[in-house]
Amino acid sequence: MSENRIVRMAEIEVDPQHLETYRALLAEEIAASVAVEEGVLSLNAVAIKGNPSRIRILEVYASQEAYEAHLRAPHFLKYKTGTAGMVTSLTLLEADPIMMCSKP
Amino acid sequence: MSENRIVRMAEIEVDPQHLETYRALLAEEIAASVAVEEGVLSLNAVAIKGNPSRIRILEVYASQEAYEAHLRAPHFLKYKTGTAGMVTSLTLLEADPIMMCSKP
Repeated sequence: MSENRIVRMAEIEVDPQHLETYRALLAEEIAASVAVEEGVLSLNAVAIKGNPSRIRILEVYASQEAYEAHLRAPHFLKYKTGTAGMVTSLTLLEADPIMMCSKP
Repeated sequence: MSENRIVRMAEIEVDPQHLETYRALLAEEIAASVAVEEGVLSLNAVAIKGNPSRIRILEVYASQEAYEAHLRAPHFLKYKTGTAGMVTSLTLLEADPIMMCSKP
C-alpha cells in the first residue's frame, strides 16, 4: 500500500435524542463515499457497546488530495450539515498506519 | 455481512523505550492472524500522530468462536507474551458496527 495514505480516527459523541437519525445519515454517507470516490479506501464506523452515542470511525484515504476531495463531495456535505446539530463532541486524530490487514 | 461479527477497539499505550520492538511484534501478529485464521476478518492498527506510543487497533472477527480461537492461536500468544512488559495501558472496547465499507 502507498505511504501517501491518510488515516484518521474520528471520535464522536452524538446527542442520544438524535442517535437513530445520525446513524442513518452516517451509514448513507459511508456507503456513498466508498462507492463513488476512488480515493476513499475504507470507512469503518462503530458504536461503543453500552454507550452507543460514542462513535468511532477509522478512515483511510489514498492521499491528501483524495481526503480534500472527500470534504467537498456532495454526500459528505449532506452528512456534515445534516448532523451538525446532533454532534456534541468531535475529535479527529491523525494516525499513521502500523499494519492494516483485511480478508480479500 | 453476518450479525455474528465481533468488533473491538483496542486502545494501547506502549513504553516508548520498547516501541519499535512492540510495533514489529504487532505487525507480525496481525499479518499472521489475517493470513492463517479464517475467522479473523480484519485487524487495522494505527499510531496516533505526534504521540506514536498511543496505538489503536480496530479488530473484526467473524464470530465469538473465531475470537476465542484467535486468543489461543500461537502467533497471538507469541505477541501477547512477547509484549507483556511493553504495554503500560490496555483498554478493550467492545463495539457494534454501524457501517463498515472498504474498497474491494
